[in-house]
Amino acid sequence: MLKKYRTLWLTADEPSLLEIVDQRYLPHEIRTQVLKNVSDTAAALRDMQVRGAPLIGVAAAFGMYLAALENPSDAFLHQSACELKASRPTAVNLAWAVDLQLEHLLPLKPDQRIQAALNYAIKLGDDDVEQCRRIGEHGLQIIQEIEKNKNKLEPMLEPINIMTHCNAGWLACLDWGTATSPMYHAHESGLNIHVWVSETRPRNQGASLTAWELSEAKVPHTVVPDNACGHLMQKGLVDLVIVGSDRSTASGDVCNKIGTYLKALAAKANNIPFYAALPSSTIDWTMDDGLKEIPIEQRDAKEVTHIQGLVGSELKEVQLTPKASPVKNFGFDVTPRDLVTGIITERGVCQASREGLAALFPEDAIEEETLHE
Amino acid sequence: MLKKYRTLWLTADEPSLLEIVDQRYLPHEIRTQVLKNVSDTAAALRDMQVRGAPLIGVAAAFGMYLAALENPSDAFLHQSACELKASRPTAVNLAWAVDLQLEHLLPLKPDQRIQAALNYAIKLGDDDVEQCRRIGEHGLQIIQEIEKNKNKLEPMLEPINIMTHCNAGWLACLDWGTATSPMYHAHESGLNIHVWVSETRPRNQGASLTAWELSEAKVPHTVVPDNACGHLMQKGLVDLVIVGSDRSTASGDVCNKIGTYLKALAAKANNIPFYAALPSSTIDWTMDDGLKEIPIEQRDAKEVTHIQGLVGSELKEVQLTPKASPVKNFGFDVTPRDLVTGIITERGVCQASREGLAALFPEDAIEEETLHE
Repeated sequence: MLKKYRTLWLTADEPSLLEIVDQRYLPHEIRTQVLKNVSDTAAALRDMQVRGAPLIGVAAAFGMYLAALENPSDAFLHQSACELKASRPTAVNLAWAVDLQLEHLLPLKPDQRIQAALNYAIKLGDDDVEQCRRIGEHGLQIIQEIEKNKNKLEPMLEPINIMTHCNAGWLACLDWGTATSPMYHAHESGLNIHVWVSETRPRNQGASLTAWELSEAKVPHTVVPDNACGHLMQKGLVDLVIVGSDRSTASGDVCNKIGTYLKALAAKANNIPFYAALPSSTIDWTMDDGLKEIPIEQRDAKEVTHIQGLVGSELKEVQLTPKASPVKNFGFDVTPRDLVTGIITERGVCQASREGLAALFPEDAIEEETLHE
Repeated sequence: MLKKYRTLWLTADEPSLLEIVDQRYLPHEIRTQVLKNVSDTAAALRDMQVRGAPLIGVAAAFGMYLAALENPSDAFLHQSACELKASRPTAVNLAWAVDLQLEHLLPLKPDQRIQAALNYAIKLGDDDVEQCRRIGEHGLQIIQEIEKNKNKLEPMLEPINIMTHCNAGWLACLDWGTATSPMYHAHESGLNIHVWVSETRPRNQGASLTAWELSEAKVPHTVVPDNACGHLMQKGLVDLVIVGSDRSTASGDVCNKIGTYLKALAAKANNIPFYAALPSSTIDWTMDDGLKEIPIEQRDAKEVTHIQGLVGSELKEVQLTPKASPVKNFGFDVTPRDLVTGIITERGVCQASREGLAALFPEDAIEEETLHE
């Protein structure tokens, strides 16, 4: 069973080496890669060998451990932190994890920093697994409620159709996933669920990663082009949408993979609940207006013009677009809070609002007045 | 200049053979194919060697000519009409053109039918070119109006950003296109326009056909994944959306390539005008509620699981999805009339409503009472 893999781990006999599943080759090949230093880690983040908001944070924390191994000086740790943070500008977990490591390490003597960095990276990883598990438990209750209302006469007669976007699965984390955690919990508890997996152009993380995960876990699912998602909702074939998030504002605006906003609009128009599932590390407490304030990463045009797939048993990249046509490739979009039914966090489900989030995380919430001073 | 091509023509020295540009190989290769009989024509329609609502109609009319050449009997013409109509169930032009040919031919003596079928197919083609030209003239006025409001201080300072979906270009017709005709007219009249070309998964007609057309005609354009369209609108980067239609109801609901509905929702949410450009042959006067009544074609899963592109100078097909994951592939969706700012027809622009369409086409409109008797 592939589920035994984690998305990253230290080489058993040489804990100075970090290993990852290189997710660029999934679902067709399971390749692993060794990261020897902080530059390797930054490159793995930038090239999306590891991706997904929570995993990005944990990988970057381990990157800081590799940095400390190389040179535990203040200067080198600062420089490494910058290099890691620049690799993916939108994901808030990246900066969050790197800054936590810095805060944690700088007060220590250089010779204590290596072990401390390792311990802290491991702790962040363990925290992630636990948070994802809890998100699943809270999200499960939403699915149970829908089951109760949908199949009043005969329990589980009709499957609960859940739509998701991109990959907010265990491949995006260390285990469970965020958006998928409620689905895995529902499936394990015996509920009859079916997942609509939106392909998620241009990188197809839905079609290649989420579909592969669900297939391995035997969760019933169907891959559809992103374009089909409105039609499925119009036709009553979706009971619930759950997506992840790369950064959310303190006011409940949700930044996630490009195309999420279109799903949220269609859910609203068809009275379908739309949830974002996210660990609180994804919340940027300093931000209020997501559309204005969150920087949207523009990625390489080649992600749109070319695509990789199998020819026989070989991986090949083909060009899709005419050579003379320019291309733009925005990585994310922002779903305004009024389109979000609720946010599923490790502490429970809340309204997508400043009040809702602050009630669950009073210690993190910054007063709005302070924020704008 | 490639613009010299038409999308179909009779072989010059042998008018019993129909030739087409096989659009499955664009933008990478310009291949033509000979259609010898009605079965070849039905296969070319089904496999989308020729596609696009207006072109489908004209191709099917020529298919009826090939049928008459083969056997001009009533029985064979009826059988051929069924075969052609079954090849693409959603497109109303197909049934429309085939039925017109039948009505036209059946009253004639069999020995007169061949020439009559040819003349009528040619006439339908000529009508299509003229209708598309007029759609362009009417749509041009909308663009001129936007230009006036956008660039009040200095004409043409900022480009007018027009978004389109799929290919409703000259490749979908014989010339001009429907949705693209206003763009070509605007470009030729010297307006500063820029077109956002939505990739249009799964068959990528935007990225491969519309982008290629615009590139050949030197119209500034940028290809984006379908998922980016909401983001572009949120960010104020879209002034106008123009799409085509495969079938519209008498009440103004617009059925078009899957994903159109999502663009319409985003346009509405961001106060961006959303127009459908269509010849009146696309209007199904017998239908009222598009969402309930228009049959939505489900197409081969392989269009989602596999994609074709260039490797070096060779065309290859690659597999994208995990082999164990099921796939659904809906060809179209319905945009309800309340999301449509207006319909651009060969007779002018009207509201997407029964009253609006009936005012332009009083001779076609059926009274609502009659419809439901």
